[in-house]
Amino acid sequence: MRKESQLLRWIFWIVVITALFFLGFIIGWFAKPTHPNSGDSSDSRHYLREFLDEMRPETIRQHLRSFTRLPHLAGTEQNLKYAEQIMKEWQDFGLDSVEMVPYDVLLSYPNKSRPNYISIVDANGNEVFNTSLAEPVPEGYEDVSDIVPPYSAFSARGQPKGDLVYVNYGRTEDFFQLQRQMEIDVTGKIVIVRYGKIFRGNKVKNAMLAGAKGIIMFSDPADYCADGVQPYPDGWNLPGGGAQRGNVLNLNGAGDPLTPGYPAKEYTYRYSFEDGVGLPSIPVHPIGYHDAIHLLKNMGGKTPPNNWKGALNVSYRIGPGFIDDFKSHAVRMNIHTINQVTRIYNVIGKIRGALEPDRYVILGGHRDAWVFGGIDPMSGAAVVHETVRSAGRLISKGWRPRRTIIFASWDAEEFGLQGSTEWAEDNAKLLQDRAVAYINADSAIEGMYTLRVDCSPSLHTLVYNITKQIASPEEGEEGMSLYESWHKRDNWTNDRDAPRISKLGSGSDFEAYFIRLGIAAGRARYTKNKKTERYSSYPVYHSVYETFEIVEKFYDPSFRRLQAVAQVRGGLIFSLADSLLLPLDANQYADSLRKYAQSIAHVGQMHPEEMQMYQVSFDSLFSAVENFTIAARGFHERLETLNRADPLQVRLVNDQLMYLERGFIDPLGLPGRPFYRHVIFAPSSHNKYAGESFPGIYDALFDIENSVEPQRAWREVKRQISIAAFTVHSAAMTLTPPA
Amino acid sequence: MRKESQLLRWIFWIVVITALFFLGFIIGWFAKPTHPNSGDSSDSRHYLREFLDEMRPETIRQHLRSFTRLPHLAGTEQNLKYAEQIMKEWQDFGLDSVEMVPYDVLLSYPNKSRPNYISIVDANGNEVFNTSLAEPVPEGYEDVSDIVPPYSAFSARGQPKGDLVYVNYGRTEDFFQLQRQMEIDVTGKIVIVRYGKIFRGNKVKNAMLAGAKGIIMFSDPADYCADGVQPYPDGWNLPGGGAQRGNVLNLNGAGDPLTPGYPAKEYTYRYSFEDGVGLPSIPVHPIGYHDAIHLLKNMGGKTPPNNWKGALNVSYRIGPGFIDDFKSHAVRMNIHTINQVTRIYNVIGKIRGALEPDRYVILGGHRDAWVFGGIDPMSGAAVVHETVRSAGRLISKGWRPRRTIIFASWDAEEFGLQGSTEWAEDNAKLLQDRAVAYINADSAIEGMYTLRVDCSPSLHTLVYNITKQIASPEEGEEGMSLYESWHKRDNWTNDRDAPRISKLGSGSDFEAYFIRLGIAAGRARYTKNKKTERYSSYPVYHSVYETFEIVEKFYDPSFRRLQAVAQVRGGLIFSLADSLLLPLDANQYADSLRKYAQSIAHVGQMHPEEMQMYQVSFDSLFSAVENFTIAARGFHERLETLNRADPLQVRLVNDQLMYLERGFIDPLGLPGRPFYRHVIFAPSSHNKYAGESFPGIYDALFDIENSVEPQRAWREVKRQISIAAFTVHSAAMTLTPPA
Repeated sequence: MRKESQLLRWIFWIVVITALFFLGFIIGWFAKPTHPNSGDSSDSRHYLREFLDEMRPETIRQHLRSFTRLPHLAGTEQNLKYAEQIMKEWQDFGLDSVEMVPYDVLLSYPNKSRPNYISIVDANGNEVFNTSLAEPVPEGYEDVSDIVPPYSAFSARGQPKGDLVYVNYGRTEDFFQLQRQMEIDVTGKIVIVRYGKIFRGNKVKNAMLAGAKGIIMFSDPADYCADGVQPYPDGWNLPGGGAQRGNVLNLNGAGDPLTPGYPAKEYTYRYSFEDGVGLPSIPVHPIGYHDAIHLLKNMGGKTPPNNWKGALNVSYRIGPGFIDDFKSHAVRMNIHTINQVTRIYNVIGKIRGALEPDRYVILGGHRDAWVFGGIDPMSGAAVVHETVRSAGRLISKGWRPRRTIIFASWDAEEFGLQGSTEWAEDNAKLLQDRAVAYINADSAIEGMYTLRVDCSPSLHTLVYNITKQIASPEEGEEGMSLYESWHKRDNWTNDRDAPRISKLGSGSDFEAYFIRLGIAAGRARYTKNKKTERYSSYPVYHSVYETFEIVEKFYDPSFRRLQAVAQVRGGLIFSLADSLLLPLDANQYADSLRKYAQSIAHVGQMHPEEMQMYQVSFDSLFSAVENFTIAARGFHERLETLNRADPLQVRLVNDQLMYLERGFIDPLGLPGRPFYRHVIFAPSSHNKYAGESFPGIYDALFDIENSVEPQRAWREVKRQISIAAFTVHSAAMTLTPPA
Repeated sequence: MRKESQLLRWIFWIVVITALFFLGFIIGWFAKPTHPNSGDSSDSRHYLREFLDEMRPETIRQHLRSFTRLPHLAGTEQNLKYAEQIMKEWQDFGLDSVEMVPYDVLLSYPNKSRPNYISIVDANGNEVFNTSLAEPVPEGYEDVSDIVPPYSAFSARGQPKGDLVYVNYGRTEDFFQLQRQMEIDVTGKIVIVRYGKIFRGNKVKNAMLAGAKGIIMFSDPADYCADGVQPYPDGWNLPGGGAQRGNVLNLNGAGDPLTPGYPAKEYTYRYSFEDGVGLPSIPVHPIGYHDAIHLLKNMGGKTPPNNWKGALNVSYRIGPGFIDDFKSHAVRMNIHTINQVTRIYNVIGKIRGALEPDRYVILGGHRDAWVFGGIDPMSGAAVVHETVRSAGRLISKGWRPRRTIIFASWDAEEFGLQGSTEWAEDNAKLLQDRAVAYINADSAIEGMYTLRVDCSPSLHTLVYNITKQIASPEEGEEGMSLYESWHKRDNWTNDRDAPRISKLGSGSDFEAYFIRLGIAAGRARYTKNKKTERYSSYPVYHSVYETFEIVEKFYDPSFRRLQAVAQVRGGLIFSLADSLLLPLDANQYADSLRKYAQSIAHVGQMHPEEMQMYQVSFDSLFSAVENFTIAARGFHERLETLNRADPLQVRLVNDQLMYLERGFIDPLGLPGRPFYRHVIFAPSSHNKYAGESFPGIYDALFDIENSVEPQRAWREVKRQISIAAFTVHSAAMTLTPPA
């Protein structure tokens, strides 16, 4: 009995001990995560909140103040100094690495000893009027040297003399109207056009194609003054002495004109100036409206159509040449601008990803400015700076994003997106394999009304989610989210009840990333009310009046709008870098594709007989879009049941999302434009279809409308539809299960 | 005391229980693997052994027998039937999925009612001699219909009549010698050239460039008969009535001539025949040496240089035209070949990867044959079939590879690699993102001597490892490995003590995968002794005499050579698909790049004055190669300390290895050849530099040697060196730590 009880006791204890051991074992087994980093999203949400809250109006103000004291044109010493300052401050903020990346690219400057100007000369060759050599310097900046006078970068040199012809905005349709309806030939003439509506480089190209030997561009008050607003410094309108600088290249995404396709390094082969990409062959010069009055007021020739008339007190007669007493007067351009290979500097900062260091989320914007860059680009650069500061604070608290974040301060954007494009060319392989998204950070503000976002359809959902977590910066909207404030002001009425998001266009540093490499991209800034404010861009654009004070006094006195933009740009970067599953939405892409296909088919169907005669149909495109829609839906449905604890399965679907945008790239590029390769989103070659998608098809349709060889033109439409359909099918394939 | 002791006892038990719980917890924690699939390499090795052992000579023999009973030209019903048979058998073998993938491509056939032939016509226009309309059919195949007579696919139609000019092999240097030294102009003449040395399409291109109005190609016994060997069926030499079929396109990787860059689907835009890629504009026809004697024997004109003489008992005089009594005779070609868009069928089979289904390892080879395809391609297709059978057996035992394996039976390879290229175009995005390697499976045997491997340098190490695990198929070499047998016969003496591995050239289905998309690729087959056997290819190449029997009687009676080739191809696929770490070697790539750079610099340095005058230097290329070498070394060193249990870290380095080959792709392509994009490995445009690397630089150097504009030519050399240096730097970047 005693023995038995002892035995029982032993058995009892053995059972207890074994049971406890197993209990421990089992708890240990299950307590251990399948993967040490399956993504704690409550942690990530918490850090996102901290990240957004850390960005402050006052520090943004300080950054902007600090970055706008001196002119810092690309290629100048001052712009290198700012690069060094940014590099040092990003290091101090706590980035893992910051480096300066130089390239040697073709830039263009006025000749300091021979200023550019335009004269009216009399029959004896005397200059009876000369345009001003500089803008009146704004108060407080009188002692600043190195303000580059208004000029057209990359203008050809020369002193052409001839009669003026006025061609409105210098668009294709303006030249068509001039030639076909007014029957005026501009061969050997100097054309004068007003700024606005299209990129100035295209005005120059159109003038060249029409045979002009020079082109003058002026800022008309109709396009560069808002109603009821005073000229700077009393308001934010363009003064009469102000003029718009800018490059006049036709690069189509090539970057440095002498090294298309390759980064402009020491060992890189450079084309001769004659063979460079997009350099105009005629002199070009910009003037303000005070000077423009003198050139326009005595012009003769036909009276203009009403929509060719600006807001100056002149007749806007077409020419050629001057009227009556002034018949013997001619115009001479005196352009001595010098193109030269110059060193530029990008600043590249990185936060190494904790789990997927080989996935890159990029926030990039330019640093170079025509003068002070109060708006363009330093309002954007200040915002990036604040984002870096806030990220640094998080790092000091132990945070590290899942993926690598890259911050970029680009150089020479104003000379044709050169810094960003050369870096994209330099790193093309890595970016193609590894880049998740690119967020652009040019000017953060161009108006005082509401948010403006342009992005890939795959980012729509994320943009809405982020803006719901940000406060409205507007006075009287305390407690309202940015999303609500934006929604109230700019509803996407026809399509859906949500704030309007636009397509990404061109003309800023996202081009190489989005249009050439196919990386999902977006941009966000504060903007004007497009329905009521009809001026182009913002009035003082690219003038000396883009100062710190114009932002502080007029655009954003509280700096809360810039704060909101910082939070949007930063929030996008944060979510893209730190979410377990990439916050990209293929269903939104499907919806957008359907709309775009409907638009283009609608244009095509305006030619029903030819469509039938040449057997052209959009069916294959619609069928491809349908196929994409099904693939996208299936993809997102499968995401619901994804085992998020399996790192390889998560990586697999994230790779599908990452490569979705890549799916729309045609490696052969658009016809004649090898660096524009995005079949859905690239600028059309023709202003008529600017802002449309499927540029290849639109360009072909434009040729239909203007071609003498309809059969050939319609064959090209067919070919482009076929390429578009194939590309959409290809993109759909990237979303289907991989095997 | 009692209470105290009870307390102590409690404490004791609590401590014991807690200790046991923690012990259990800790054991549980550590017992659980960090990731369920960290790769059991002993399992994988075991399966590899089983996979290799399962491949049997007898079954390979059966596959070959079954696939060579009937002619199966691309686009014919019989070739579709074989596709259906392969599809069914692959399903039966146990693949996860097998599908038939059709394309509609441009093929070319003789007109059945108007046969192609060449005549000698007398002064009255009477045909005094006609070439044969078909080859004598080999014994046992007398009742077979649908044997296509020898023809040049894609020949232009026409009946040109004129004097013959003999131009040796029709190489660039042959035409140069003809024009510059012999001062003979072939404008308006018909040229006759012997087969061999270069691709027949290039002979046609050269003839066209020289102004010929037709071209005849013949198989000279000097190039198509081995010493001491009887003509088939008594031996494996080409009989006098045999002739070599083949396409005469100049595609440069375009695939279907009517849909370059895009897959030839229903909705795809097709160019007109006139705008098709690479179609010759003159008639072309192939003949055997019996017929050639008749055309050559009465030729007049200059006596040829010795190296222009073949082995026929004729003078090999150059012409133009015939001698003496035959002066009034001329030659007329009668070519009625028809190009037509025709449906072709690839068969695609898949084994889904267990852990990384989105990583693809591809084994592809063509199925279409000019006639029976005893060697080309069915010796290769039989080997693929056996590999699929063996893989199926493994699957039935529970094996599943880490990555997805894709097996492909391509169609219309003989018409310009069309099946493989169209599928590559169709799946370009997926392949670019996901393909690890492509192993090609064309003819598995072309000689009886030893193994021949051509592959990317990154595969060298794997090829050696695999061949060490395979037995030599040679009699008397029992117990010797294939590696040893191969090493003994073909040592890479100058460079290293190991079997020779060559560069991948062009002309088989790997082109689109390797040269266009930059996927690591390789091929393996049994070959002749290159040092002693000087004939081109193998004698009966593309003739009706490529039967099952020629393999069974002469090339591989035991079928052990084909078994060895199956094991090499299969072993490569297995290792690439199942290894935890991809078995690709960047250090080998570095070694190869150094050799190639030295070779090209050596050629450049034969022009020292010009190099100096035009400031051309190879320094940037050498510096890039050095940079690549350091990156590769660092990469493999870091692999040593990789945490192989971390799936994301493993995936990261595997992605670096996978994208290494992609790093050598220039998206802009080689000059004028947009589908040849591999900067290191693409065929040079000139036969003189065939087999060299850095084709862009070699082509530019060729132009130096033949250009009248040295400055422009040297600028192009500079440009190409700069592109090569950049590309090597780019590839090096893919190997450095990602952030």
